Amino acid sequence: MKYSKLFGKTSYGDQSGSGMISHQLLTKGGFIRESVAGRYFFLPLGWRVQEKIKAVIKDEMDKAGAQEMISPVLHPLELWKETNRTNTAGFELMQVTDRRGGEFALGGTAEEMFVDVVRKFNLSYKDLPFNIYQFSTKFRDELRARGGLLRVREFVMKDAYSFHTDAEDFKKEYDKMAETYTKIYQRLGLETRVVKADNGYIGGEYCHEFQVEHPEGEGRFFVSEDGSYCAHEDIAEFARDEKNIGETEDEYQVVDAVRGKTMNDGVELHGKPLWQQIKNVMFADEKGNLILAVIRGDLDVNETKLKNLLKAAQLRAAEDNEIYALGSEPGFISPVGMKGKVKIVGDISLRTIKNGYTGANQKNKDALNVNLGRDFDLDLEGDIAMAEAGFLSPDGQSKLEEKRGIEVGNIFQLGYHYSNLMKDANFVDKDGQKKPYYMGCYGIGLGRTLATIVEKHHDEKGIIWPENIAPYQVHLIDINENEKAQMIYQTLIEAGVEVLWDDRSENAGRKFNDSDLLGLPIRLVVSKKTGDQIEWKKRSETQAELINLDQVLERLKQ
Amino acid sequence: MKYSKLFGKTSYGDQSGSGMISHQLLTKGGFIRESVAGRYFFLPLGWRVQEKIKAVIKDEMDKAGAQEMISPVLHPLELWKETNRTNTAGFELMQVTDRRGGEFALGGTAEEMFVDVVRKFNLSYKDLPFNIYQFSTKFRDELRARGGLLRVREFVMKDAYSFHTDAEDFKKEYDKMAETYTKIYQRLGLETRVVKADNGYIGGEYCHEFQVEHPEGEGRFFVSEDGSYCAHEDIAEFARDEKNIGETEDEYQVVDAVRGKTMNDGVELHGKPLWQQIKNVMFADEKGNLILAVIRGDLDVNETKLKNLLKAAQLRAAEDNEIYALGSEPGFISPVGMKGKVKIVGDISLRTIKNGYTGANQKNKDALNVNLGRDFDLDLEGDIAMAEAGFLSPDGQSKLEEKRGIEVGNIFQLGYHYSNLMKDANFVDKDGQKKPYYMGCYGIGLGRTLATIVEKHHDEKGIIWPENIAPYQVHLIDINENEKAQMIYQTLIEAGVEVLWDDRSENAGRKFNDSDLLGLPIRLVVSKKTGDQIEWKKRSETQAELINLDQVLERLKQ
Repeated sequence: MKYSKLFGKTSYGDQSGSGMISHQLLTKGGFIRESVAGRYFFLPLGWRVQEKIKAVIKDEMDKAGAQEMISPVLHPLELWKETNRTNTAGFELMQVTDRRGGEFALGGTAEEMFVDVVRKFNLSYKDLPFNIYQFSTKFRDELRARGGLLRVREFVMKDAYSFHTDAEDFKKEYDKMAETYTKIYQRLGLETRVVKADNGYIGGEYCHEFQVEHPEGEGRFFVSEDGSYCAHEDIAEFARDEKNIGETEDEYQVVDAVRGKTMNDGVELHGKPLWQQIKNVMFADEKGNLILAVIRGDLDVNETKLKNLLKAAQLRAAEDNEIYALGSEPGFISPVGMKGKVKIVGDISLRTIKNGYTGANQKNKDALNVNLGRDFDLDLEGDIAMAEAGFLSPDGQSKLEEKRGIEVGNIFQLGYHYSNLMKDANFVDKDGQKKPYYMGCYGIGLGRTLATIVEKHHDEKGIIWPENIAPYQVHLIDINENEKAQMIYQTLIEAGVEVLWDDRSENAGRKFNDSDLLGLPIRLVVSKKTGDQIEWKKRSETQAELINLDQVLERLKQ
Repeated sequence: MKYSKLFGKTSYGDQSGSGMISHQLLTKGGFIRESVAGRYFFLPLGWRVQEKIKAVIKDEMDKAGAQEMISPVLHPLELWKETNRTNTAGFELMQVTDRRGGEFALGGTAEEMFVDVVRKFNLSYKDLPFNIYQFSTKFRDELRARGGLLRVREFVMKDAYSFHTDAEDFKKEYDKMAETYTKIYQRLGLETRVVKADNGYIGGEYCHEFQVEHPEGEGRFFVSEDGSYCAHEDIAEFARDEKNIGETEDEYQVVDAVRGKTMNDGVELHGKPLWQQIKNVMFADEKGNLILAVIRGDLDVNETKLKNLLKAAQLRAAEDNEIYALGSEPGFISPVGMKGKVKIVGDISLRTIKNGYTGANQKNKDALNVNLGRDFDLDLEGDIAMAEAGFLSPDGQSKLEEKRGIEVGNIFQLGYHYSNLMKDANFVDKDGQKKPYYMGCYGIGLGRTLATIVEKHHDEKGIIWPENIAPYQVHLIDINENEKAQMIYQTLIEAGVEVLWDDRSENAGRKFNDSDLLGLPIRLVVSKKTGDQIEWKKRSETQAELINLDQVLERLKQ
C-alpha cells in the first residue's frame, strides 16, 4: 500500500477527547475516527488490525469445533419479552419500531435469537452438543461512552452459544472455551486473568471474565497473594476475622444518643471500635419489598451479593419515608424488633462479634450489647459484604490484593435459564422425552480488545503492534529515493510481504515520526546515506542496521 | 465437518412461504432460516457460502485498489437531514432515538457517513483519488418482503464510495468498477447485463445496474435486438415512429362528445386511431404545483422520466378537484387554453402526428384537429414516454426486447451531489483553492447475489454450487462403513480438502437426497459395494465412477 493513497493518515492535532493513550494513538495514527460519541469508524489501517484479531479468534473458535453463522441485527422484541429482559436494569437496550408496527431490539447480546433459531429445528440428543457463534455489531445505549474504544455504544462482538444435553457435557465445553480464550489472548499479546464474576443480566449461575490488568480499567477484582483465588468485586469472598466473639453477652440496654447519622458518629459517642457497631442498610426490591441488610460496622454491603442472595431483579436504597413508615428512624435503624416488618438479611460477619451497638429505631436513642440470636434474628444469612484489599482470602491462608483491569472477554454458564423461560426450547433425549437444553455463552469485544492491545504495546512515540496483528509488517520509508524504494516495494510485494510505503514527498522527520506512531514491526529506510543497502530497524528495538535486500527478504521469511 | 454435529440440517417440510426456488432450496437445505419476515439467519452452511462470495468481492475490490474500512451502523440523523434524504420517498429509512435524545438512522446506504468521515480530514489533491468500501448490514423498512433473500429488510451489502478531483478522474474509476463487477459476477457463476438505470434517491446523474436475467426478477429493462442498447424501463429510450406528420393542419373545432372517460371511449366515438388521440395526464409535484403531461395516445407517461425532466422530488396523480379548479374536466382535459394555468410538459411523440383529437376542458365536449404550435404550446418538451417491447431502439436501427432480471449490483455516478449538499466536503486543489470532491458509489447485495446463484444453479433435486463458493468441496457419504469413511475423512482433511462427512446412521436414500439438495461439487460414497474403492460423482453430472483414494486426491488437487 502506498501511504500517499491510504485513506486515514496521521494527524497530530488534538482530536482525542479521551485521556486513554490507546484512544489518542489510534486517533492520531489514523486507525479510527469518532462519528459521534461512542461510535467509531474503523479506517483502513484500523480495520486491518480488527480483521486480524477476528481471524485469530475465528481460527481458535473453529479449532475448538465451534461453527460460525449470523443472526439478524434486529431482534423481534417478543423474544426479549419471553425472557423478561426488556425491563432488566443494567442492560441498555435500544428499540425500534418499523412502519408496520413491528417492534425490535437492536441486538446487544443474542441469547434469545440463538435459542429462537435452534428451537426452529426438531433436535435430538444426537444433534448435540454444538457451539454456534457470530461476529456482529452490538448496541448498548450507554449513558456515558468513555475511553475511546473501551466503552462504546456500538461495537463488533464475537458471541458464541453452546447447547448441551446436560451440565456435565456443558462443563467440558466451558473448560474448552476457557482454554480457547487463553490461547486467543496469548496470540494477541495480552496476558489475561480469569476472574470469577457475576452473571448479571445475562442470567445463569456462574461466569468468568478475562481481565487484562490496567490501572485505569473499569473492572475491579481481588486476587489472593498466593494466587489461588481471583474474583470480581461483585462476588469476591473473604474470610471474616474473628473479633470479640469469645466475650459473654452483657445486658441489652437502650441509652440516649444525641449524635449525627454516620457510623463515625456512633464510634465517637460510644468510644467503641467500628467493627463492634452493627450497620443497618435498608433497601427496596423491584416489587417494593423492604429489605434490611445487617452487617458488621467495618464492612460494606455488596449490593450484587445481596441481590443474588435475595434472588431479586433490582435493588435500590430505601427512602426516608419508607423507614419512618416502619416505625424506625434514618440513622438509628436497629434489627431489634423488626422481625416481620421487613426481611432481615444478615452478613456472616455478625457471627464474629458480641455485644454490638447500634440504633434503637428512634431518634437519639442507641442500643448497647446487641447480640444476634438473643436480641434479633435473621430471615436470611449469607455473604453480603464487599471485599477490600488486605482482607483474608476465602481460605484464610493469604491476603487479598486489589486489581483493576479491562474486561476483554467473558464466558457464562447459562444452564437452563433461557431454555426454561423460552417455549419449546428442547430436544428429544434417548428416552424419547423432550428436555430443555443446557446452555453456555461466550463473548469477546473486538474493539475493546484492540484498544487494550495498544494500552499494553506502546511507548512514548507510538504503538508497537505485535507482529501477527500489525496492519502491515513493513514500513518502507524513502528519503528522496523514490525509484530505489519503488523497486524494493515491488520486490517485497512479490515476495508476499505486507508493506506500507511512505512514498510522499514529506521530510524525513515527519516520515520517521509517522512510522513510530503507526508502529509496524519493521522499518526499512532508503536514502542517499544508505547507498546500496537498506536500513533495517525493529519498532520494538532502538538499534538500526544496514543490510541488503536479500538479507531483508531472508529475515522477513523467518 | 461431520454432518451429525452441523447446526442446520436438511428438512423437507413446507417451511418456505416464497415460491422462489432459491428460497425453498436454501431453507430445506439448512442454509438459511427466517427470523421474522424479511430477516434471515444464515446458518453455518449458508454463512460459509456468503463468506466465500464476500472473499471474491473483496479480492477483486482490493485488486482494483479499493480500501476496506467500516462505518457505524447507526448514522446521526443530522447527516441525512443535511442531504434532505430523511423525507425522500422511495427509501424506507428506519430511525431510532437513544435515551439521551440522540436521533439516528439505521444505515440503508452510507453516502453521508462516508462523506462525513472523509471531510474530517484536511485532504489535498495529492490524497485523491481513493475508493473506500465496507461490508455491513443494511436496513430497509420494506412494506413487503418477498422472494426469500431477494427482497429483505436487513442484508449485508458491500458498498464502496470513491472520491476524485474531477469528472475525468472519476470516469476512470467508474469504468474500472464496471470491469471489476463483471469479473466478480463471472467468478460467482453469474452472467450479468449492464443496464443503464435511474439514480433515484441515491442522487447523481447516471448509473448502471448489473442484472441477471430471470423471468421472475423485479427489474424490467429493454435490450435492442442488435445488442447495442440496454436500459432499465425507468429510463429506456426509443425512437418515435412517424405517423401522419405530413398531413396539412385542418381547422380546429370543438364537437359534442357524449362518451366515457377512457382513451378507448374517444377512439370509438371519433373512429380515429389511438395514436392520433392526444393523451393528457395531470400530476402534482411535492410542492403541489400542477403539471399537465401531454403525449401521443398510444404511449404511456413514464413517471420517472417526467420527474427527472421536471427535476421534481416526487410526483402524484392530480385529484379530480384540482382538475375542476383549473376549469377543466376529468376525462376531457385538453392542453388548449391551459397555458399559464399549469406547467405543460409534452413528449417528443407529439411531433409525429397532425390533427390530433382530445378533450375540450368541459364535460362531453372534444376538440378535433388539435395541432401543437398552432393550438397549444409546451412549457417543456422531452422524452417522457414508457418504452415497450417491439418499439424502435433509440437509433431506430433495431427493435426493443423486454427482459426481466434480478439486480445483483449497481454503480452510480454521484458527481457533486453530496459534496455540494454537505458542508466542508472539499479538498485543497493544486491552485490552493478548496473544491468539492467528485464522487461515485458502488453496491453489491450479498444475500441477493447468493440467492440468484441458486436460481441459476440448481436442478429438480437441489442446488448445484459453483466450485469456488460451495460451502464444502466434497460430500462424503458412508453406507454402514463408518470406519472406512473415518479414514478417508481424515486423509482429505489433512490434504486441506473442505469435506462434509454425512456420518449419521441414516439410510442411503436420505443421505443421497440430502447430498443432492446441498449441492456440493463432488460426492464420494463408500459402502460394501464399493469395496476398496470410492464412488466419485460430480453433482453437475449423472455418471459415477469407482476410483481409489489416491485418484480422488489427485483429482481434487486439479
